Amino acid sequence: MNTAVLSGKRLAGLIQQRAQDEARLLENEGLRPSLAVVVATDDESTHWYVRSIERAAERAGIGCRILDLGHDATEQVLAGVLKDLSAEPTVNGIILQTPLPAGVSADELVGHIAPEKDIDGANPLSLGRLAVGQPAFAPATARAVIELLDHFEVPVAGRNVVVVGRSAVVGKPLSLLLLAKDAAVTICHSKSGALETYTQPADVVVVAAGRTGLLTGSHVSPKSVVIDVGTNVLADGSLVGDVDEASVTGVAAALTPVPGGVGSVTTALLLLHTAEAARDQSRSLVRATAG
Amino acid sequence: MNTAVLSGKRLAGLIQQRAQDEARLLENEGLRPSLAVVVATDDESTHWYVRSIERAAERAGIGCRILDLGHDATEQVLAGVLKDLSAEPTVNGIILQTPLPAGVSADELVGHIAPEKDIDGANPLSLGRLAVGQPAFAPATARAVIELLDHFEVPVAGRNVVVVGRSAVVGKPLSLLLLAKDAAVTICHSKSGALETYTQPADVVVVAAGRTGLLTGSHVSPKSVVIDVGTNVLADGSLVGDVDEASVTGVAAALTPVPGGVGSVTTALLLLHTAEAARDQSRSLVRATAG
Repeated sequence: MNTAVLSGKRLAGLIQQRAQDEARLLENEGLRPSLAVVVATDDESTHWYVRSIERAAERAGIGCRILDLGHDATEQVLAGVLKDLSAEPTVNGIILQTPLPAGVSADELVGHIAPEKDIDGANPLSLGRLAVGQPAFAPATARAVIELLDHFEVPVAGRNVVVVGRSAVVGKPLSLLLLAKDAAVTICHSKSGALETYTQPADVVVVAAGRTGLLTGSHVSPKSVVIDVGTNVLADGSLVGDVDEASVTGVAAALTPVPGGVGSVTTALLLLHTAEAARDQSRSLVRATAG
Repeated sequence: MNTAVLSGKRLAGLIQQRAQDEARLLENEGLRPSLAVVVATDDESTHWYVRSIERAAERAGIGCRILDLGHDATEQVLAGVLKDLSAEPTVNGIILQTPLPAGVSADELVGHIAPEKDIDGANPLSLGRLAVGQPAFAPATARAVIELLDHFEVPVAGRNVVVVGRSAVVGKPLSLLLLAKDAAVTICHSKSGALETYTQPADVVVVAAGRTGLLTGSHVSPKSVVIDVGTNVLADGSLVGDVDEASVTGVAAALTPVPGGVGSVTTALLLLHTAEAARDQSRSLVRATAG
């Protein structure tokens, strides 16, 4: 079996271009889409990641404000900032970056992000709206999986798709997106029993469990398209996914690499979501003024 | 195979009793839990159903106000009533009963039900909160399935559970509840392909598709516990589920009857949710006063 490598790089470039095109259209109307990223950590890799979003935003003609509140920011301060940004007309998209200070939980904080600016689908209301089919932003990572499947023309309607991982950030929203595309969706996790029972017969396997080497060649079949959402940093600083690439290669039909797969698409989608949010907000402003 | 009949009647009685006990405790504090049901239809069977909730509430010592807005109520009027009830301190639980007048969609209206009073889990925010593990009421029907499984000691942790139907009222919230109980959950629907592929190997099959005779004996195995959520009214007025009872009986391990299964538990849960909502609201009132 010659396992195809489904790189996300070309798709990331296409989505980045769509974000840029959208931003240019809005510029003609005198608007500049703008993203705010709230950070409250000293973690180096987080700052590196946030700066990479900032650079990508600049390239796309999207404004990006990083609000660094420090590693000792309180929940009250963070909530206040998120409320202010939600009310601020010049901000179109808001990201609350994890990790947060010790003792501060994102769970309640994300409820302060206005749904129309919740471009990484963190507010539970966004997830609920997604579930009932109302307009909402999905978490960028979940949408990245769908965009990758579309890009490589992997059919999911009427197919057996297994999602490994039940997080509110990937597993659950991704399952909703897959259901909306008419897939039969199975959600497995650390306590669901023998993984291969579910993944072996699947057409598509998405792994988002955060565990290095979780999916091996014995879990898949020659028809399996494997999407690796994992991003695990090893002791030597290198980045690996949840899939044991060496053993899956040669067995599965296709596999997304880490890095260079889902992750590269995710950042581009954050920008596209910001541009889309800016467009939607400018239109509802026109409606409000006209009405 | 001697297929066990999993009647919901005894469980419904136990839950009704729990609601009554909770109501009595609150009465000692001078509180009477109260439910408001908003109706906007001439449909006879709907009125019959709402009156059955009213009678059950009376028996449990729970107040029940039926607000009949007529079959020509506008979306604005309905929204106004839901907002008023959400703000009214003497109302603890709110149900927006379907069907609604032609052209009026429940989708946006349910967003006006305050989450803490959303005792049938209709607001998308309730679904989102459920997904992220925050306190929220699940739709009573979805919880009824879980309570039935618990009552008859059917294990789901680490088991293969298939949910047929992807509605926001049953399929999706039920899948979230099952995931929280560590099941491996597969969601099938009208476009997901051959049903038996998924249901045959399953330990538990929940059918909530609204299609008479959808699940037959050939879809199940001797280990299958089958939960029938369907409520289809036949031309002669009789009520049947989604399961072809005759063909599944003798093949599956167990089956819930229709009527007398999930449905009977659902009404009792609406009352228990109302009592729980009253308790939670009285406590947060105490906190607000003390704080």
